[in-house]
Amino acid sequence: MHKPPAATLWIDERPFELEFGAVLPRLEIAYETWGRLSAARDNAILICPAFSSHAHAQSSPRDPSPGWWEGMIGPGCAFDTERFFVVCASLLGGSFGTTGPTSIDPRTGEAYRGHFPAVSIRDIVDVHLRLVDHLGIERLFAAAGGSMGAMETLELAIRHPSRVARVIAISGTDFTRPYTAAIRHLGRRAIMLDPAYQGGFYDGAGPTEGLRLAREIGTLYYRGREEFNARFPHQPINPPSREGITFDVQSYLDHQGRKAVGLFDANSYLTLSLAMDLHDVWRGFSSREAALEPVTAAFQIVAVEEDRLIGVDEQRAVHRALVGAGKRSDWHLISSRIGHDAFLVELDRVTELVRPFLLG
Amino acid sequence: MHKPPAATLWIDERPFELEFGAVLPRLEIAYETWGRLSAARDNAILICPAFSSHAHAQSSPRDPSPGWWEGMIGPGCAFDTERFFVVCASLLGGSFGTTGPTSIDPRTGEAYRGHFPAVSIRDIVDVHLRLVDHLGIERLFAAAGGSMGAMETLELAIRHPSRVARVIAISGTDFTRPYTAAIRHLGRRAIMLDPAYQGGFYDGAGPTEGLRLAREIGTLYYRGREEFNARFPHQPINPPSREGITFDVQSYLDHQGRKAVGLFDANSYLTLSLAMDLHDVWRGFSSREAALEPVTAAFQIVAVEEDRLIGVDEQRAVHRALVGAGKRSDWHLISSRIGHDAFLVELDRVTELVRPFLLG
Repeated sequence: MHKPPAATLWIDERPFELEFGAVLPRLEIAYETWGRLSAARDNAILICPAFSSHAHAQSSPRDPSPGWWEGMIGPGCAFDTERFFVVCASLLGGSFGTTGPTSIDPRTGEAYRGHFPAVSIRDIVDVHLRLVDHLGIERLFAAAGGSMGAMETLELAIRHPSRVARVIAISGTDFTRPYTAAIRHLGRRAIMLDPAYQGGFYDGAGPTEGLRLAREIGTLYYRGREEFNARFPHQPINPPSREGITFDVQSYLDHQGRKAVGLFDANSYLTLSLAMDLHDVWRGFSSREAALEPVTAAFQIVAVEEDRLIGVDEQRAVHRALVGAGKRSDWHLISSRIGHDAFLVELDRVTELVRPFLLG
Repeated sequence: MHKPPAATLWIDERPFELEFGAVLPRLEIAYETWGRLSAARDNAILICPAFSSHAHAQSSPRDPSPGWWEGMIGPGCAFDTERFFVVCASLLGGSFGTTGPTSIDPRTGEAYRGHFPAVSIRDIVDVHLRLVDHLGIERLFAAAGGSMGAMETLELAIRHPSRVARVIAISGTDFTRPYTAAIRHLGRRAIMLDPAYQGGFYDGAGPTEGLRLAREIGTLYYRGREEFNARFPHQPINPPSREGITFDVQSYLDHQGRKAVGLFDANSYLTLSLAMDLHDVWRGFSSREAALEPVTAAFQIVAVEEDRLIGVDEQRAVHRALVGAGKRSDWHLISSRIGHDAFLVELDRVTELVRPFLLG
């Protein structure tokens, strides 16, 4: 819940107008880079973070702690730093150094907290682009991300068609369906049910119990039924108790929930959760055809058969819309008992897909 | 949260020992019946309630309000009262007239509330059988149920092999898998997160907000992704708000949650939720073969392809285990965008399956 130690903080003093109306008087953007920008500035890859991710995608001499996509960025890796300049920035609305609810609102001198406005994936991408501009990069060689990061890549390619040449979108979607929005809504309800939430104006750690429950609800969708059923015994490990731990899987979930307390500020959780629900790359276009007509990127769309959060059908529909509009789109359906979060776990398989797409 | 108006209350003054060790000094059992018991007492069908159900499965002159399986019981219906005597009793541990946390503990003269012990599906079935004995029925013509009710029918047929001739088990399972237990665990966590829960010793309505959230988490699994995505628009219906209603699907879920507050006592919710997690028809047997060897019932196993709570694979495994043991089992896989709860909604299709199985 702070800027990752190796991240550079760039402050953009220009106001930033959000899609749904409010204005942030200035932006702070925390980012890390790996590899070297070529003289022609044509080898940059933007890594787009997922919900719980941030600028620190990969360890480096400046910060040897493992990144959230550790093993994906480096010499010979999927995002090969012998060839590419890789950039990753913390998310607008999050709590990892880029402007969010824990940032100081310069108009009041106090943290935004419960006053932080609603942001969209579109806003998050526009903040990414401010940074890309700042780094002097006109056209990204590629943008890549999983889950929320995949939503960002699609938004970037469709809304800013000249800015990116290749898109790798894993377990993402073009717009959030009601079932998926319902899941996130319940996570937000869990946070608000915690009496420590205080309308977003909590002190200290805030609604940690609500945050834990929200994360645990999410975990049922981020991970796979197949994984849970293979990993845990179904027999009680303790005498049955309505309140305590009767089954092993409860301990696992509680552990996931507790980790979230260190990862998220509750207001950031709410902000980014709503941003995903608002995701719709087609919003504001007269038609999908009109939206896709100017798009120049080639796409790699990767879906996981066991995904319980975002249906394979909707991911395939994105691929078909692209192909229907005459764009290059490579479709890969992989099977992993991890489910939605496979992009964070099955790194060898993701690397096998990503490397040839980037180097081909 | 009271005995259904038309239900008969039978009080069994014998103590009842629970599978996991505690003793209830006496039992109250609320039940309703439809049709007439034949002179040979061989035409009785036991309807096994699901989690939110009770004795009032079908309206009658004594209580014209719709039952939870309205339309399934009556002349010419799936459970044809021209031919069958149909019985349905509220669940042990629930709050609809059969002994549960809101009942008075005769040892203390006060309601059990948070002291109510853990019960299992096995206990629930044993209470059903006490009633069946009381009605003078040695062998049931059939037992039928969906979801938790299906668990009860399987437990009955396997643990008490001489007591039932036919079993209709819709969207049930032989034992609860860790993924499904994880879902219910989070519902229980939601109730306990509500400060009004007070360790189960609340006054009045109790943890209504937690109960709502628990029910809403459940609704994501009882119903279908396909249904939600077809029913609701994905566009915001209000300006985005982290706390309020931004999407139509949120209103629907909130409505489902509010209905639960009238349906459940929170302690009953916790008790029955844990009972389902503890479900395991094989517990205590030396092998599945040994468990199935004495079984005499014929089975109809019905699964819904879109079920998100209980996998089709596990339901098919039940059918296969039965066939492998030389039992008669008819397997039906139906498709319904409702998902798990289809047995409560797609009555015509259930009737089409059930009638020939009972009359054939």
